[in-house]
Formats: sequence, structure tokens, C-alpha cells
Amino acid sequence: MIILGIDPGLATLGYGVLEKNVRGDVRAVDYGVILTPKEERLPTRLAILEEGVVRLLDKCTPDEVAVEELFFTKNVTTGIAVAHARGVALLTCVKRCGRLFEYTPMQIKQALTGYGKADKKQIQLVTASLLRLPGIPRPDDAADALAVALCHSFTSRLSGLYTI
Amino acid sequence: MIILGIDPGLATLGYGVLEKNVRGDVRAVDYGVILTPKEERLPTRLAILEEGVVRLLDKCTPDEVAVEELFFTKNVTTGIAVAHARGVALLTCVKRCGRLFEYTPMQIKQALTGYGKADKKQIQLVTASLLRLPGIPRPDDAADALAVALCHSFTSRLSGLYTI
Repeated sequence: MIILGIDPGLATLGYGVLEKNVRGDVRAVDYGVILTPKEERLPTRLAILEEGVVRLLDKCTPDEVAVEELFFTKNVTTGIAVAHARGVALLTCVKRCGRLFEYTPMQIKQALTGYGKADKKQIQLVTASLLRLPGIPRPDDAADALAVALCHSFTSRLSGLYTI
Repeated sequence: MIILGIDPGLATLGYGVLEKNVRGDVRAVDYGVILTPKEERLPTRLAILEEGVVRLLDKCTPDEVAVEELFFTKNVTTGIAVAHARGVALLTCVKRCGRLFEYTPMQIKQALTGYGKADKKQIQLVTASLLRLPGIPRPDDAADALAVALCHSFTSRLSGLYTI
């Protein structure tokens, strides 16, 4: 099964693709970022983002998609821009893959470290270690996307156990 | 020329369609709202919204689209939901009509009443009066969409004069 994780953003959208075998083992297949140029107008950037996500879906053909939820404490303006991009990412993914799931940053931290307030660095180290990667994936947005995909992989395994 | 105005929202997206003749006179051709059910998940609601906007674009085939910008002082959670919907509306419109313009609430108030702090009711009354409508268009989201379309109609007329 292929799981696509997405860390939404307008300037940089992170993605991480995992393959999960029948035993529940996961490995990273691909990760990276989709960028939109800051000098373009918002509608154009959203169209570029959609194009990138469509190409990504064509390439990895995920069975399930996990998207990080937004959480704001500081910059509302940035939050609004990210929410525009997240709307486009959700729309593009749901049109191609009905099995779409959303996770809050706290759920991701909880799933990966058992501690909902773990810091970013800890999450990245755990992600790299669980996926047996030689180092922390770069940039951060790609690492965060792999983390949400891993979170989904664990959570769906657990919910599977509970529903048997 | 056909101008489509959009007041973005997740539960209710308002639209207003104006026709502008060569003398610059405008008349309302259509207005209304696109609704998404609160009980559905966010990605599904975004897909419903996109479908509605596509149908609207098919029906009115606008030459130019004007979309209200978001402005928040109070509820960030609502703002984030609206921004998801606005991202989808911008994307869907820009794919069909490259001539897409954005206006802040203050620009709309300024264009319609000459006063950037006019209240909602004043804007609605001016909109109804300028379009020679028998009363204030209902619901509010449709009236707001007609207002942004009118604002674009005035603003683009002025910029036209300056560039001749």
C-alpha cells in the first residue's frame, strides 16, 4: 500500500511517500517539496501548486493520503496563506483518492514519540530512525510530510486492530 | 462584458453576475449562493464547492472575476475554514478566467460609498440602489458578491481612463 503524506504550504509544500507491506513495515519511497514563486500572484501560485500535486499523484498513485492540519498561535497572515494552499491540496487529493485523512500536529507527535509536545527536532530524528534513513530528510517540509505519513501508517494500523 | 463577483465562504459562497455595457452602465444578471453541508468533511465540502463554481462559470462565462479578500479581527478558526474555500474558489476561477482581481473589504466600501469604514447595511443599500434592484439582495453573501463585482466595475473603469 502506498501512503502519501502532505505538509501543506504556499511557498513550500512538503510531500513524503511511504510503502507499507502486509506485515505493516514501512519504507520511504520518495520525498521532496513543491515550490511556488513568491513574486507570482496568489491565484497563479495556487494553480502552480495544483499542477505539482497532480504530477505527484500521477507519479506515486497513493492508496491513502494523510494531510497535516493547521495550527496557529502566531502569524495569522501566514496561516491564511497556508490555508488557501491547504484547500487546494485537499481538493486535488480528494478528487483522485477518496481515502484522505487529516492529523493535527499533536496527533503526529503523539503517534511518533508518544508525547504530544515533542519538539520538531525529536520528530525528525524519530522519522529518520523509523524509516532507516541515513540522516534527517531535507528540507524540513519533506521531513514533516514523511512524519504525517508515518503517523497515518501507525494510526490506521491501530484502528485496524481495534476494528478486527 | 460579464463580471463575476465572489464573496468566498465554506458553508456559503456568495456570487453576483453583472453585465457592463460599452457606456459603463451595469445591471445585475444573476446572484445567489453555493452551499456546502456542515455535516460533510472538509475535503468533500471543498469538492462540492468546486463543482458549484465550475457550474457557475459554465453558466455565466465571465470576462473578469472579482473576489473579496479575507480580513480577520475575530475568529481565526472561521477564517482558516474560509481561506480553504477561498483557495478553491481562486484556483477554479483562475483556471477558467485569467482576468481575476482581488479587493479588500475596505476597497469595496471605498469604491461604493467613498468611505472605507461604511457599514454592511450601507453597502447593501448602495448596491441595491446602483443596480436598481427592488430591495436588498438576499442572502447577505449574494449582496456582498454583487458589491465586489460593482467595486471591480468602477475600479476597472477608472483604471481604464487613466491608461488611455
